[in-house]
Amino acid sequence: MRMDVVAAIDIGGTNTKIGIVDRNGKIIARDVVPTTDYPDAKDLVTAVEKKITGILDSQLSSLNPQLKGIGIGAPNGNYFKGTIEFAPNLKWKGIVPLADYFSEALKVTAVLTNDANAAALGEMYFGGARRMKDFIFVTLGTGLGSGFVANGKIIYGHDGFAGELGHVIVMQHGRQCGCGRKGCLEQYCSATGIVKTYFEILRSSEPEAFNLLDSSKVDAKYIYEKAMAGDESAFYAFNYTGEMLGLALANSVAYTSPEAIFLFGGLAQAGEMLFNPTILSFEKNLLNIYRDKIKLLPSSLPENDAPILGAASLIWNELHNSRH
Amino acid sequence: MRMDVVAAIDIGGTNTKIGIVDRNGKIIARDVVPTTDYPDAKDLVTAVEKKITGILDSQLSSLNPQLKGIGIGAPNGNYFKGTIEFAPNLKWKGIVPLADYFSEALKVTAVLTNDANAAALGEMYFGGARRMKDFIFVTLGTGLGSGFVANGKIIYGHDGFAGELGHVIVMQHGRQCGCGRKGCLEQYCSATGIVKTYFEILRSSEPEAFNLLDSSKVDAKYIYEKAMAGDESAFYAFNYTGEMLGLALANSVAYTSPEAIFLFGGLAQAGEMLFNPTILSFEKNLLNIYRDKIKLLPSSLPENDAPILGAASLIWNELHNSRH
Repeated sequence: MRMDVVAAIDIGGTNTKIGIVDRNGKIIARDVVPTTDYPDAKDLVTAVEKKITGILDSQLSSLNPQLKGIGIGAPNGNYFKGTIEFAPNLKWKGIVPLADYFSEALKVTAVLTNDANAAALGEMYFGGARRMKDFIFVTLGTGLGSGFVANGKIIYGHDGFAGELGHVIVMQHGRQCGCGRKGCLEQYCSATGIVKTYFEILRSSEPEAFNLLDSSKVDAKYIYEKAMAGDESAFYAFNYTGEMLGLALANSVAYTSPEAIFLFGGLAQAGEMLFNPTILSFEKNLLNIYRDKIKLLPSSLPENDAPILGAASLIWNELHNSRH
Repeated sequence: MRMDVVAAIDIGGTNTKIGIVDRNGKIIARDVVPTTDYPDAKDLVTAVEKKITGILDSQLSSLNPQLKGIGIGAPNGNYFKGTIEFAPNLKWKGIVPLADYFSEALKVTAVLTNDANAAALGEMYFGGARRMKDFIFVTLGTGLGSGFVANGKIIYGHDGFAGELGHVIVMQHGRQCGCGRKGCLEQYCSATGIVKTYFEILRSSEPEAFNLLDSSKVDAKYIYEKAMAGDESAFYAFNYTGEMLGLALANSVAYTSPEAIFLFGGLAQAGEMLFNPTILSFEKNLLNIYRDKIKLLPSSLPENDAPILGAASLIWNELHNSRH
């Protein structure tokens, strides 16, 4: 008896997480290496390879594990080339062929994509999108990431970089974005976006409170707690965020007409405080043929495990598709 | 020796066009019936059936034609159900199961979708998108229609109604749209949209000329001819239309990252007058990872035959996919 497993790798700016995952999405072993310790990507691959081999050969040896592949979620990941390209939060510069490195090191298939696309696949294999063929997955973290699934497949696009909802321009001449342009959605609908909104509201409605505020203490969680305690400015900050998000999601529906939209990440955990104004704006801004039939749902992936489950599903998906 | 053909049907508000099309996209016979003569859709189907049978049995009998299926392009067409649903420009009210009617009448497969999706498939089978797996097709006519192809397939979405780029809201509190909402793209980027833009510009820059204008004479062609003759207001109307279209297309790229975008329809025939400002705005508004690599092209389908070629490709596509 042997057990098929995949190695799932989540490349973060600080840490690289490793999970060994079975076909049902159970994470049966974990480890971590500090990404910042490896200025050369090849050295990180060697370190991760040793961890994986160690886990499979000793910790899990009684299960007789069979490694079917390596799934990698990474910032600026390109699915077609298996590369990380010009990731601003990583030390590795230029184009890094990380999937090839892993494939050579461990002699199995390695598949790489960006974190949000991986998490969307995770939702399809192990979360709320099981049996769905058309859905949208949105991560509301420091930025806004997204994965679009149509006809049962992730839309990677011609170049492997599709699904950048965070960089749709929603406000001409709007807030300056890190990408160099102005008015991108993630400047409004993200953990950093809501802080900007809160500051704007507070500055105009309660200038004294704004001047006394220690701005370094303000994050999305702070605003959420204020709003829950009845603070109007904080409440309106969520309202405005929901209005912008609802409109952007209604526009997204006109592209891919999904069965459901899943919201994931820190800001999505604000629950009704975010979902209520978002759903209101979403339904109001939907074209009539789409109204009252698209589910707007919190992701059902566990917050901490989503990147690992997403990376793992990359391989299960590959094996599934190659059988067809 | 026998010849495989499909019957392609283009349902328009005034006329229903019929084409018999071979596998290479050659239209080997044509006919037409007036849509408005048939308040009951079933009677139209009977009339079209007689035309098709007549063509196959007499006009084309020497080719020994073998009818492989019926492809139908129709306003508000639903691919999954084969229905036309609440089409404002047709006499038939409610939901009409037109594909079933045709399939029963002619005893072959009938496939139906909206005109823009059909034309997108036509571009893929017989036009400039051959060998492309990811592209966007936009029709700039009275309204703005679109078809999105990802992973080699039309995105129909969960309900069969995906691809409504014309109803993406690009301007909050913008121009009133026929759909009941405000600021939809097709209120700016279409033959009717550019007329509204021209009136706005003329009213503010040349109020006397505006008051003397016989507005019933103004259409997209009139504005084009004015612009070509050096009229500034007409020129700026094209500039503004291109700016709005370029931004909307740049945002579309963030969803599906296409290899190319094809523009089709009356307004697209303005050539450089429309393409120059559109490409300028498109490249300016693109996220850096997409810049300078996406082709913005005129459709290579002949203007008059596109609906028939699109409807025909629905069947060739169905036969192609069922072999895989």
